[in-house]
Amino acid sequence: MEFSINLNNIIGIIAGIITTSALVPQALKIYKTKSARDISLTMFIFLAIGITLWLIYGVLIKEIPVILANFVSLILIFSIIFMKIRYG
Amino acid sequence: MEFSINLNNIIGIIAGIITTSALVPQALKIYKTKSARDISLTMFIFLAIGITLWLIYGVLIKEIPVILANFVSLILIFSIIFMKIRYG
Repeated sequence: MEFSINLNNIIGIIAGIITTSALVPQALKIYKTKSARDISLTMFIFLAIGITLWLIYGVLIKEIPVILANFVSLILIFSIIFMKIRYG
Repeated sequence: MEFSINLNNIIGIIAGIITTSALVPQALKIYKTKSARDISLTMFIFLAIGITLWLIYGVLIKEIPVILANFVSLILIFSIIFMKIRYG
């Protein structure tokens, strides 16, 4: 049972690191090119709302990987929304 | 206890619907403009790997909202990767 819990957490932590990291190259690409024309603002606004709910869900089911991944994702999503509004 | 489980599932299902739906306007935007220059391919390849792991994680912790949301997301992510490669 304890092995199972650890395996879940390890996979969840790796999944969280990868999906959260995914936002970094996108944020950097917009920052470098100062262009976000092809980026859908609707996508990132939906993501901000949805990821906030995943964060609440993570707190409710008490799953640390879900909580951490979504918290960091939220910060990156807000930085992309900010740049999208700034650079268009 | 049963109320708590239902509340978790409801929030998880809404979160899943919103984050998965977020990919739809992005996919449609690329499809309509035939342009994906500002989209980071690295982001969506990382997302594909990460979401696959979230799917496995969902199966391991037996959480239907996690499984469903990530399965549909994966299909949308592959369609965005396909269009990014096609339209550049």
